[in-house]
Amino acid sequence: MTTHDAVKAAPIPAFHLYDTTLRDGSQQEGLTLSVADKLAVARHLDELGMTYIEGGWPGAVPRDTEFFARAAGELELHHARLAAFGATRKAGVAVEEDLQVAALVDSGAPTITLVAKSDLRHVTGALRTTGEENLAMVRETVEHLVGLGREVFVDAEHFFDGFVHDADYTTSVLVAAQEAGARVLVLCDTNGGMLPHQVTEIIEDLGSRLEAAGVGEARLGAHMHNDTGCAVANTLAAVRAGITHVQGCVNGYGERTGNADLVTLMANLQLKMGLELLSAETLGETTRIAHAIGEIVNMPVAARAPYAGASAFAHKAGLHASAIRVDPDLYQHTDPLLVGNDMRMIISDMAGRASIELKGRELGFDLAGEPELLSRLAAAVKQREAVGYSYEAADASFELLLLDALGQVPSYSTVESWRATSQLGRDGTLESEATVKLLADGEGEHERKVAIAEGNGPVNALDLALRAALRERHPEVDEFELRDFKVRILDAHHGTDATTRVLVRTSGRGLEFQTVGVGPNVIEASWEAIYDAYTYGLFKSGV
Amino acid sequence: MTTHDAVKAAPIPAFHLYDTTLRDGSQQEGLTLSVADKLAVARHLDELGMTYIEGGWPGAVPRDTEFFARAAGELELHHARLAAFGATRKAGVAVEEDLQVAALVDSGAPTITLVAKSDLRHVTGALRTTGEENLAMVRETVEHLVGLGREVFVDAEHFFDGFVHDADYTTSVLVAAQEAGARVLVLCDTNGGMLPHQVTEIIEDLGSRLEAAGVGEARLGAHMHNDTGCAVANTLAAVRAGITHVQGCVNGYGERTGNADLVTLMANLQLKMGLELLSAETLGETTRIAHAIGEIVNMPVAARAPYAGASAFAHKAGLHASAIRVDPDLYQHTDPLLVGNDMRMIISDMAGRASIELKGRELGFDLAGEPELLSRLAAAVKQREAVGYSYEAADASFELLLLDALGQVPSYSTVESWRATSQLGRDGTLESEATVKLLADGEGEHERKVAIAEGNGPVNALDLALRAALRERHPEVDEFELRDFKVRILDAHHGTDATTRVLVRTSGRGLEFQTVGVGPNVIEASWEAIYDAYTYGLFKSGV
Repeated sequence: MTTHDAVKAAPIPAFHLYDTTLRDGSQQEGLTLSVADKLAVARHLDELGMTYIEGGWPGAVPRDTEFFARAAGELELHHARLAAFGATRKAGVAVEEDLQVAALVDSGAPTITLVAKSDLRHVTGALRTTGEENLAMVRETVEHLVGLGREVFVDAEHFFDGFVHDADYTTSVLVAAQEAGARVLVLCDTNGGMLPHQVTEIIEDLGSRLEAAGVGEARLGAHMHNDTGCAVANTLAAVRAGITHVQGCVNGYGERTGNADLVTLMANLQLKMGLELLSAETLGETTRIAHAIGEIVNMPVAARAPYAGASAFAHKAGLHASAIRVDPDLYQHTDPLLVGNDMRMIISDMAGRASIELKGRELGFDLAGEPELLSRLAAAVKQREAVGYSYEAADASFELLLLDALGQVPSYSTVESWRATSQLGRDGTLESEATVKLLADGEGEHERKVAIAEGNGPVNALDLALRAALRERHPEVDEFELRDFKVRILDAHHGTDATTRVLVRTSGRGLEFQTVGVGPNVIEASWEAIYDAYTYGLFKSGV
Repeated sequence: MTTHDAVKAAPIPAFHLYDTTLRDGSQQEGLTLSVADKLAVARHLDELGMTYIEGGWPGAVPRDTEFFARAAGELELHHARLAAFGATRKAGVAVEEDLQVAALVDSGAPTITLVAKSDLRHVTGALRTTGEENLAMVRETVEHLVGLGREVFVDAEHFFDGFVHDADYTTSVLVAAQEAGARVLVLCDTNGGMLPHQVTEIIEDLGSRLEAAGVGEARLGAHMHNDTGCAVANTLAAVRAGITHVQGCVNGYGERTGNADLVTLMANLQLKMGLELLSAETLGETTRIAHAIGEIVNMPVAARAPYAGASAFAHKAGLHASAIRVDPDLYQHTDPLLVGNDMRMIISDMAGRASIELKGRELGFDLAGEPELLSRLAAAVKQREAVGYSYEAADASFELLLLDALGQVPSYSTVESWRATSQLGRDGTLESEATVKLLADGEGEHERKVAIAEGNGPVNALDLALRAALRERHPEVDEFELRDFKVRILDAHHGTDATTRVLVRTSGRGLEFQTVGVGPNVIEASWEAIYDAYTYGLFKSGV
């Protein structure tokens, strides 16, 4: 692991950004990562400028043991250090004989983060042991691992609740860890119930106690959860109280309400609190990387997520749109480009002509001198949105609507009919097929095309049949691929009888764009979105 | 509006919870409310214990003008006061002649909240007028409305940024509003860029300035946005600095990153900071009401939302599950029942036997003495989740899996075949139909049933055909209704070729339950979820 050796030799950074997406983050409901996913996420975290990447709990979680084994040969980190998470030795077991501690060593990770009980009630109630034995567990496990050349951090579990319950005992756990050689003592709000002012008070109190115990030089860290909606704020309060190591998860993943969102934290610390943690270039890649990780774990970045969310800098109200034309800084708390995001105008029935004009400009159309067109377009958008269309995430469909208002909408075929069927046969086989009949346009004439295709499902079959029907006249269709397919039932409380909206993302010929379709069922809605996608793709191909 | 008169006569509460979902919240990307939706949401907000409900911007937004008109006759509020939002008079226009101000009066709302520019740069740059004229606009509009018997609040737009830029001017705007008779001066972080410690410093500074200006008794409010992930924390900091009026939106709706989440705020203020804002009974309805509002606006409560989210108290890690069996308070920051939520065990491949045993207990099965069964069930869950099933939101399907492991799974038919078709005919008509062929079980014998149904789409048609096939033997099927239908493409980046998961919520005979289906396309996945739903419904009917 030469990369690790090189990083180990480098000076310890003054401030640690520590990501635990691959361990704590994985405890989020609905989040399941394969080893390949974990390796891919780790590479992105490295790219994001993380100081530490907590890779998992080897020995306790089989997939994590495998991750560390494969990371040794496959994971090339250029910046971050890999950390393995685990527990202090079991009560009553010698550290040299504790199998899980051995697994931590075997993982090969240069940094090991040990979770230690620091709330006396957990020591006696959950671990069923004594306060003294727990201190020995901490001391001995840290000494053992430091002796083997590992950098050791200690996560003081339930630190804040424990400190409120019995500050002396909780402090003694930290002192034991520090004296045994731990490099960072991480204060964890495991249940997530803290508020920022409480964090400040407790850390200040702790500071005096550590001084008094002769370990005032101890380096502290913070690990917050979002149960009171204050994970980020609690972490910032901790930083203002002197902490130099912050733990969290990119995109705020994590059990229950999640860990502190590291993307929000990074941006706040650097752009608002003046800490120089990352190069401007790296910070500028934040949004892209956050979304890439969201794709891998199949938990997309929330639209409303600060800094990186698709809506973070998207302005809807007609009111704001007028002001933004005057001066973008009047309505934005920071320049979105600093984090790689962008200001977006949202088309909606609230927007009015100012927003549509700005949107048109975004797409390359100068509509400034066309009030009548703008009104017509605004009315068209309003009417379509009333029946379920949403142009907010379907710029290509909006552009087609705009071209239609200009009398310039492209057309490559006239659809005659289509049919899609799915069936479970008597022999238990599942089949889907579709037929498409259309008149293909091109070079001033039509040609009737009839195509059939089988697919994984009715929508897939329709997609393939439509391609087949268009292919001869317009071979460019084969250069496009449908990448993403989102289905939204708009009035779900009507059960299977509801209006459906489908968003399709297509890429090809260097482009990437989204189209929308609406219908009483997913087949019809998908047909519309797919048909628009090929129309747009062919149009942009200059056909 | 007798209800309003009665509420008007009541003493002004010591602390205001002010919801702006129907105005500021509606600016969230993707959120569109009909007037009927707004009235329904208003009723729920009243039920939630809100002190004020900001209904919209009459005169500027047609739908809002209609809302207030209809509210007069249709909206019966038992607790909350209705507020209309609008702007100070236009520059250079006499307040009596300003049409939008007149619309505010015409709305009939007893409380009017005026947005006033308080950042000098916005006054000159966006409004294109002078600081003096702006003060006159504030003064005259407030006086005018107070003179007409309205309770007037003033939202100081861009207050914090304005204060940092020119504290004297920004303060003078507040002083003018207070002297003109405004009841609350709301400090708005319109761009959302503040951090909690900055909020504290600014409000403390403002306090001294207001004292010096002779209006130290002014009542202050806070209106925060979540652009730095600190909306809730900023609001709490403001409360600790003396604010007694907090604005936000239920479920954190709002433009860009959203407004402060009122649900999180309410729970924090009452359960963590000891403010007695609501009765315990009302607070206990919070989760239910938050979700009900989420359904109406079709923006469901985020799973990770503090207090009310489905995952807020859901424990996944096998580690925690063991401890929770010992003492729930060891791992929860508060009792979920206080906000009407519940502790949930999440079935997942991380959980292990402890979680499944607890889950089984939740469903009424005592599996404590059945280690072999638990292992088998855990393995079955793991294997199915690996191919896309998710039991986290499909308790009925999990129960069927459990019954299957016990050798007791119910069966009411044997499926022979089915087929679903959607087509666009030459004449432009869209049709969907399905056929289902099965052997219906009952009273020890089978009967072959062949049914056909037409529907709004292939899934709807299959649902109706399946009912038709089962109906004669099992008429109870007609007592169940499919209420909610969610489609999730699991590996969306494979385009139309992806694995699909469908979740169906069914209700009937006093029950409400969810089932899951997985398949290579939405038709097959839906079939499975629907078939399970009827199986479960008939089982629970005692058939």
